[in-house]
Amino acid sequence: MKPEILGEALGSFLLFATVIGSGVMAEQLAGGNIAVALLGNTIATGAMLFVLITMLGPVSGAHFNPAVTVVMRLRREITSRTAIVYIAAQVIGGVLGVWTTHAMFDLPILQTSQHIRTGIGQWTGEFVATFGLLLTILGTLKSRPEAVPIAVALYITAAYWFTSSTSFANPAITIARSLSNTFAGIAPENAPAFIAAQFAGALAGWGAALVIFPAKD
Amino acid sequence: MKPEILGEALGSFLLFATVIGSGVMAEQLAGGNIAVALLGNTIATGAMLFVLITMLGPVSGAHFNPAVTVVMRLRREITSRTAIVYIAAQVIGGVLGVWTTHAMFDLPILQTSQHIRTGIGQWTGEFVATFGLLLTILGTLKSRPEAVPIAVALYITAAYWFTSSTSFANPAITIARSLSNTFAGIAPENAPAFIAAQFAGALAGWGAALVIFPAKD
Amino acid sequence: MKPEILGEALGSFLLFATVIGSGVMAEQLAGGNIAVALLGNTIATGAMLFVLITMLGPVSGAHFNPAVTVVMRLRREITSRTAIVYIAAQVIGGVLGVWTTHAMFDLPILQTSQHIRTGIGQWTGEFVATFGLLLTILGTLKSRPEAVPIAVALYITAAYWFTSSTSFANPAITIARSLSNTFAGIAPENAPAFIAAQFAGALAGWGAALVIFPAKD
Amino acid sequence: MKPEILGEALGSFLLFATVIGSGVMAEQLAGGNIAVALLGNTIATGAMLFVLITMLGPVSGAHFNPAVTVVMRLRREITSRTAIVYIAAQVIGGVLGVWTTHAMFDLPILQTSQHIRTGIGQWTGEFVATFGLLLTILGTLKSRPEAVPIAVALYITAAYWFTSSTSFANPAITIARSLSNTFAGIAPENAPAFIAAQFAGALAGWGAALVIFPAKD
Repeated sequence: MKPEILGEALGSFLLFATVIGSGVMAEQLAGGNIAVALLGNTIATGAMLFVLITMLGPVSGAHFNPAVTVVMRLRREITSRTAIVYIAAQVIGGVLGVWTTHAMFDLPILQTSQHIRTGIGQWTGEFVATFGLLLTILGTLKSRPEAVPIAVALYITAAYWFTSSTSFANPAITIARSLSNTFAGIAPENAPAFIAAQFAGALAGWGAALVIFPAKD
Repeated sequence: MKPEILGEALGSFLLFATVIGSGVMAEQLAGGNIAVALLGNTIATGAMLFVLITMLGPVSGAHFNPAVTVVMRLRREITSRTAIVYIAAQVIGGVLGVWTTHAMFDLPILQTSQHIRTGIGQWTGEFVATFGLLLTILGTLKSRPEAVPIAVALYITAAYWFTSSTSFANPAITIARSLSNTFAGIAPENAPAFIAAQFAGALAGWGAALVIFPAKD
Repeated sequence: MKPEILGEALGSFLLFATVIGSGVMAEQLAGGNIAVALLGNTIATGAMLFVLITMLGPVSGAHFNPAVTVVMRLRREITSRTAIVYIAAQVIGGVLGVWTTHAMFDLPILQTSQHIRTGIGQWTGEFVATFGLLLTILGTLKSRPEAVPIAVALYITAAYWFTSSTSFANPAITIARSLSNTFAGIAPENAPAFIAAQFAGALAGWGAALVIFPAKD
Repeated sequence: MKPEILGEALGSFLLFATVIGSGVMAEQLAGGNIAVALLGNTIATGAMLFVLITMLGPVSGAHFNPAVTVVMRLRREITSRTAIVYIAAQVIGGVLGVWTTHAMFDLPILQTSQHIRTGIGQWTGEFVATFGLLLTILGTLKSRPEAVPIAVALYITAAYWFTSSTSFANPAITIARSLSNTFAGIAPENAPAFIAAQFAGALAGWGAALVIFPAKD
């Protein structure tokens, strides 16, 4: 397997394991104080994003996210074939990360979430979250490319708190989180609307970046 | 619209949405432990400041704050016309950010805060907070310009905790926060004194920076 | 004594003192909210890792960890003799750090932990934690070597939360923690299985890095 | 007044205001959960240290600490006269910072702490804390000088948690904290032993740095 495909798969494995695992750990320890649990979940996720984008950025671009991969295809930075293989690697690697996390915490491997996340407020949250994520990636790539890992990590850190949906902002992670009936889960029937809002937000972020960060000529 | 004006508007939109949104999220989840709520509010705000200043600094200077814009005008780095347009963009973009946040959290869009914040102690807090903010911006621009995004982000992180007013330090955000009856709000009748203290502190910070960081000649 | 050996010993002293000491402090203050205690433990550990790797990296490589030392030997970056001396320095320095911490907190110097940590879930946790640690070190060394201190610090920050075992990921610290009957301790009889899982994970991380980050030729 | 002296005074003003002010804020909000209060105190202190050392390092060296100033004198980097003026600026600026903080929080300006902090354990804590601080400063100056601001900030972040005394590590701040009967205070009669332990630790750190980070020749 090519290094970049393995990179997308392994990065998604570790990222999604972190999102789910830190949610399980935080909820088990927080004794009902959900804000403290979200702090633990946030810090772990932001930290892991920095690590993975730093080391895998030069290998695969470090997408770990079909919404990012689709925008990169629209920008003609990758081929359609690469985009499809990346998205498959993200979903497969990510789901394996979720299942491995269940094994680590002695939970049943196969689960589906019963965590209801729906409504116009939360869909707006996902739209805004993914809009901001793409704007962050494309804007920082233009303004200061070496800062992309820390910018993305801190954007998601903020977005976990300022969006009503706690910022999934990633269709692959939405699928993976539907397979975990834990803190970070989402009921499978709520996933399609989240994913639609994420792609819509990603396209809007791409458009805003075209205006605010025009290509040099 | 010019990229820099859109940059100020969109940056203020995301920054103010983060301040208000993370306050709502934190208060909803913290179950009465206000220190934990302030931690969430702090981490989200600092993280978003880093992201926005990193990506929008090269576009607009990343003020998002009329007190900063006025000092930059006094330093003759921008024209009066630009200053006025910037301030309008900050207020309009920021208020839209607050209203979008209300939509995300299923709250009434139009609100006014009833959160009383007044008294000599808190006004001193705003003076000190904005004094330190301008000193940080102007000092870091002189000592190590590439560190401005992280320095401003961490200055506000500290100022949320060490000033009695939790460091608004920004007239536009003071206006925007008066339109949200949530954790981060301020009653409209308390806003003018905050804003006056902020401009006074900004001028003092500008003066101190002239002495401590004299221009090379 | 050569600077690099003293560096390994003193770095392990400060690192292990931080792990144990912040655990004691956090548990004493957290009043039963273990998630808050783990937050304090995490932040202190990540912060100290950054400091120690930044200043001691150029001196000794900043391993502080026999699993890292063994992989560096397998990569032929150090001799067998150096590896043995490093591991001895790590264990001796680290245990002295634990004992000094006990003195600081007015606890009996000599203790053994009664904290049971066992089972397939936790062993899987240690395997994954050490796998990811070596992947982070070797991948970042290849992709962006100046980012190794922050990458390792943030990897461990995440791993404290996403692995079921809270990520010891270090045979020397496992031994040292068996000598402290405090928050971060591990019962001595549980240590061998942890250490075996750590070495296995380290070797797997080395192998994965060979595939994803192939040497240039 | 020379910029470097004003820099030491103003830096100490803001640093000590942050230590005291964030302690007051944290204690008021934390509702008895001292670990959460210490988290707020830690994050604010670390953040402000980064800001001040980044911007004032090129101006004055950013000591803000007589133990650092004395070691710099021993290293012949400053004159005795400069050392004396620096220490005076640190104490005067810092005490003004504490008094301003009391004004911000509507507390009596003049206070003395009744917070007992004594015993061999805590003195050992101050020795270790200041030892590590000087080692961090001198080691990072040698290994990677541009990382001094973040290394010192993160060292103190860790030391607040892993030392039994919460790491004052600074004779000037010890004096200033004796004048505040709040979270961060220390009873005046306990200050001399803390200060003695701090200077002893600083000298030991200087000695260790001479061995581990020998000057190039």
